[in-house]
Amino acid sequence: MKSGPLESGEASSGATTSKKWVISEVSILEFILRILAAAGTLGSAMAMGTADETVPFFPQNILLNAEFSDLPMFTFFVVANSVACAYLVLTLPLSFYHIIRKAAKKSRIILVMFDTAMLALVTAGASTAAAIVYLAHKGNSNANWFAICQQFNSFCERTSGSLIGSFAAAFVLILLITSSAIAISQC
Amino acid sequence: MKSGPLESGEASSGATTSKKWVISEVSILEFILRILAAAGTLGSAMAMGTADETVPFFPQNILLNAEFSDLPMFTFFVVANSVACAYLVLTLPLSFYHIIRKAAKKSRIILVMFDTAMLALVTAGASTAAAIVYLAHKGNSNANWFAICQQFNSFCERTSGSLIGSFAAAFVLILLITSSAIAISQC
Repeated sequence: MKSGPLESGEASSGATTSKKWVISEVSILEFILRILAAAGTLGSAMAMGTADETVPFFPQNILLNAEFSDLPMFTFFVVANSVACAYLVLTLPLSFYHIIRKAAKKSRIILVMFDTAMLALVTAGASTAAAIVYLAHKGNSNANWFAICQQFNSFCERTSGSLIGSFAAAFVLILLITSSAIAISQC
Repeated sequence: MKSGPLESGEASSGATTSKKWVISEVSILEFILRILAAAGTLGSAMAMGTADETVPFFPQNILLNAEFSDLPMFTFFVVANSVACAYLVLTLPLSFYHIIRKAAKKSRIILVMFDTAMLALVTAGASTAAAIVYLAHKGNSNANWFAICQQFNSFCERTSGSLIGSFAAAFVLILLITSSAIAISQC
C-alpha cells in the first residue's frame, strides 16, 4: 500500500516545490496590494477630510465657508474610506500569515468575502462623492442645481483630487480579490 | 506504475463522491445567484429607464417634464445595470458548465475577476443614483440645491424604488464571489 503514495510523492516533488514558490509570490503580491489599497483610502479620506475653503462674498460683505461636512455624501466618503483603511491595516497580519502558511483555505475565503464587501463600500463612497463633485463642477439646469465651483475653486480641486486615491484603491481591491482566488486555487 | 493511481482511486472513491456533491451544490448556488443578480439589475434598469413624469406648472401655464436622461447620473445607472445584466446573462452558460465540469479552475478564476469588476460597476451606478435621489428628496441648503421631489413625486418614487434592485444585485454579487471562492477551494 505504501508504494503508491511514495511513488507519486517522488514523481511530483519538483512540481510541489515550484507550486510552493508560486503560492508565496501570489501571497506577497496580495500583501503589497493590501498596503497600496490602504494607502489609497487613507490618502483619500485625509484629502477630503481636510478640504476647507472660506471665500468673501462681496455684495453682503460676508464670508462663505465650504467644508466636506456640508454635504452628507462627502461625509460618507470620508467614513467609508476610513473604515476600509482600518480594515485593510487590521488584516495585514493575517495576510502576512498567508505568506508563511500556504494552505490556509478557510481564512483566505473569509478574507475574500470581507475584501469584496470593502470593495463595495469603497466604490459606493467614491461614486457618491463623484456624483456630487460632478454636480459641483457642471450643475444641472433641469433640476435647477447650479455649479458651485466658480466660487469654491480650491475646495472643488481638493474634493476632485481625493477621488483618485479612492478609485485607485477600488481597482487595487479588484486585483487583490483576483489574486486571492488564484492563491486559493493553488492551496 | 499503474498500481499507485488505481489503489489511491479505490481508497478515496467515497471521499471523491462526497466532494463532487459539495462542489455541485456550490456551483448550483452560483448559478441561482447569477440569475437573481441579473433579475435585480434588469428590474432596476427598466424601472429607472421608464421613469417619466409631466406636471403642470401653474404660474406660467407650462408643462414640466422629468425623465431619467435629465440627470447624467441616472443615465449612468441605467447603462451600468444594463451592462451588468447582459454580462450576467452571457456568463450563465459558463456557470452551467461549472456545474457539470467541477475542476474548471482557470475559467472560475477569470469569472471571479469579471464578477468583481461587475460588482464595482453595479455599486458605482447604484451609489451615484442614490446620491442624486437623496439630493432630490432632501436638497442641500449649503450648496443652494433645492429638493425637487415636491414637484415630481411619482418620478422620485420610481427612481428611489429602482435603487433597491441594484443594491440587492450588489449584495447577491458579494455572495456570488464568496461562493466562487469556496468552489475554487474545492476544485
